[in-house]
Amino acid sequence: MVRLKGFQKLTPIHEALQKFFDQLKIEKLKTVAVPVHQALNRVLAEDIIADEDLPRFDRSAMDGYAVRAEDTFEASQFKPKTLQITEGDEVGEKQAKQVWTGNPILEGANAVIMLENTKRINGKIEVWVPVTPGENVSKRGEDVSKGEVAVKAGTRLKPQHLGLMAALGITEAKVVDKPKIAILATGNELVEIGGKPRENQIFEVNRLILSALCQELGAEPFDLGIATDDVNEISEKLKVGLEKADAIIITGGTSVGASDLVPAAVNSVGKPGVIVHGIAMRPAMPTALAIADKKPIIILSGNPVAAMIGFEVFAKPLICKMLGLEQEFRLVVKAKITRRVSTALGRRNFVRVHVSQCGEEFFAQPVSTLGSGVISTMTKANGYVVVPENREGLEEGEFVTVHLFDSIEVVDEDV
Amino acid sequence: MVRLKGFQKLTPIHEALQKFFDQLKIEKLKTVAVPVHQALNRVLAEDIIADEDLPRFDRSAMDGYAVRAEDTFEASQFKPKTLQITEGDEVGEKQAKQVWTGNPILEGANAVIMLENTKRINGKIEVWVPVTPGENVSKRGEDVSKGEVAVKAGTRLKPQHLGLMAALGITEAKVVDKPKIAILATGNELVEIGGKPRENQIFEVNRLILSALCQELGAEPFDLGIATDDVNEISEKLKVGLEKADAIIITGGTSVGASDLVPAAVNSVGKPGVIVHGIAMRPAMPTALAIADKKPIIILSGNPVAAMIGFEVFAKPLICKMLGLEQEFRLVVKAKITRRVSTALGRRNFVRVHVSQCGEEFFAQPVSTLGSGVISTMTKANGYVVVPENREGLEEGEFVTVHLFDSIEVVDEDV
Repeated sequence: MVRLKGFQKLTPIHEALQKFFDQLKIEKLKTVAVPVHQALNRVLAEDIIADEDLPRFDRSAMDGYAVRAEDTFEASQFKPKTLQITEGDEVGEKQAKQVWTGNPILEGANAVIMLENTKRINGKIEVWVPVTPGENVSKRGEDVSKGEVAVKAGTRLKPQHLGLMAALGITEAKVVDKPKIAILATGNELVEIGGKPRENQIFEVNRLILSALCQELGAEPFDLGIATDDVNEISEKLKVGLEKADAIIITGGTSVGASDLVPAAVNSVGKPGVIVHGIAMRPAMPTALAIADKKPIIILSGNPVAAMIGFEVFAKPLICKMLGLEQEFRLVVKAKITRRVSTALGRRNFVRVHVSQCGEEFFAQPVSTLGSGVISTMTKANGYVVVPENREGLEEGEFVTVHLFDSIEVVDEDV
Repeated sequence: MVRLKGFQKLTPIHEALQKFFDQLKIEKLKTVAVPVHQALNRVLAEDIIADEDLPRFDRSAMDGYAVRAEDTFEASQFKPKTLQITEGDEVGEKQAKQVWTGNPILEGANAVIMLENTKRINGKIEVWVPVTPGENVSKRGEDVSKGEVAVKAGTRLKPQHLGLMAALGITEAKVVDKPKIAILATGNELVEIGGKPRENQIFEVNRLILSALCQELGAEPFDLGIATDDVNEISEKLKVGLEKADAIIITGGTSVGASDLVPAAVNSVGKPGVIVHGIAMRPAMPTALAIADKKPIIILSGNPVAAMIGFEVFAKPLICKMLGLEQEFRLVVKAKITRRVSTALGRRNFVRVHVSQCGEEFFAQPVSTLGSGVISTMTKANGYVVVPENREGLEEGEFVTVHLFDSIEVVDEDV
């Protein structure tokens, strides 16, 4: 008989995401050229196709002597083969040419014998161990062959990708432009950091957190400031966001109690407006997803922890899609949960945990939370565990997948 | 009877690190103040001590009514309690004041009853469910209490740390200055990216890779360019590095065969010079560690893959120590190795693998490598497994700890 005020119906996460992305036509961001040394963590816009073989020539993988393998057959410590050292550009029969790692293999040679398997005596070498044709030689094209895709479009460029591009002589990377994400906080109780809060006021922290989260993903935050709880003020700022940015994130004013100011403002600036409001998750239940002027708008809770979880679940996949990221960046670890946790049935629960490594084992200690407003739970935790809608919690000792947002503590170092 | 030319003795990794750090007195880098919105991923130099309680006042954790808990005892759906709504600044006996999440709890009230557990009728509410004192109230200091360390020195600042600092009204973070790492490549065969390699020449890629690795850790690379295989030229560049930077990384010229040019140059610029040369590891065996003018110098293989592994093993812990990082950033995952791998006994082997997640399971597929020069093995892999000195390989199906340097591929999404 208790009437559920608030959200009449909570939408499951997967359904919310599907509705949102079904109605949203994500426009391709423009491609920009940046020097490779500035391309770290950018997303590659076009396949890199090798225009030559890498290595460009057969080269030695060892320090030693380039030889004809046939001349070393049956060599042993007891019956070494003797080869003449040549200084020429070719290796003839029973000749050897000294090479260092990376040196080209000369005409005539087909293998490299390691320095330590030889002995040099008066312009000759004794060979103690036979080599087979191709041994210790990096073949031309072994790394990447001409015409092959060396790095795929949609790859987030790590140091190794930059290295591979550079090895191909590429100086400029064509990357996806950074999506611009406008961020607006709403609420009469909010004061800018550095300001003087009156009694009952609090510092506005969500724009800072969300900007940092955007930056980590390779998006560019655009600050819309703070709006008071006024539909017109919120709408005006949203219009600026729609004009200047590719997407908007708004925090605060989404709980039903605090009246539907933000959804109303969103609905006033463009069609179709709010698509989903109220998600079957905890925290971040009052999250809403909207589209206006073909641009995505994500309305997050004003509560910092709920805003972070809402960002992770909705804004992160959005930004990844905007970037054309082939694969979402996820860092996960399997860990043993150290105590029982109970969660709400029918909601997807995000349980914050602190993972530590002890020897070969990983343990996830649930961080006790009184409310999702407790931001220090996010600094005490380094990851979260997703408890699905059909479960009422986690059992002590259960193995769980932890999604990491900070590094793992090593209690006892393994090898 | 085969004589081991080359390194007379290979030093185990742990011994090499110990020798290096025992002789190296790492000087504290200076502290710099940066605005919090520019402090992402910087390392905090001083403990942040809360100078006030957070929250600064008792506040509502829900939308609902602030009440005296006692007035709700024994309320039920069948026998609701009735309270008078007040608009005043205090909550008296049998009164209720409407509050939204985050609102301060008024004088007199000690609990919040959720909106959905009440019914409003003509300036009064019916309460259907009792609340206990403190229920739905975020107590003052619940998040952080005055005098408590909110964020520890040595923490790498993630979005959540910035949020917590901002909630305390902090606008500027005192962070550790970025250690400046000079990077020099050596070798006659090297050409700048963008240049025109002659036959037998290759593009120099290590400075780009190592600079990016430094940047990822929060260090500032300083480019010393390329030196030819000439002791004087190398020494001159090293002197510039010692003057301008906090540490130097050099690549190339460390294999014994290619003569001891770089070690000789290092020994010429300062005492004690090279401390360890030749490590019992694979790849990256020809790595050397040195100190000159109290500054650390790490000499890495000219081979990009070996240089990356050498950086991971030696330069990363060095940079973390310089930063005063309380905890090294490590991302690891336990995965099942998909096939047998054999490795060299007596060396610590770094086996590159590609980790993918399939349902609840993680699999590590060894990336086949012909030589450590094959840079594409680092783009095909997303992590590595360490095989200790006393093992000859990994068994198929064995569970291993993978150190990740790129994101995990999800073959089949789990919840």
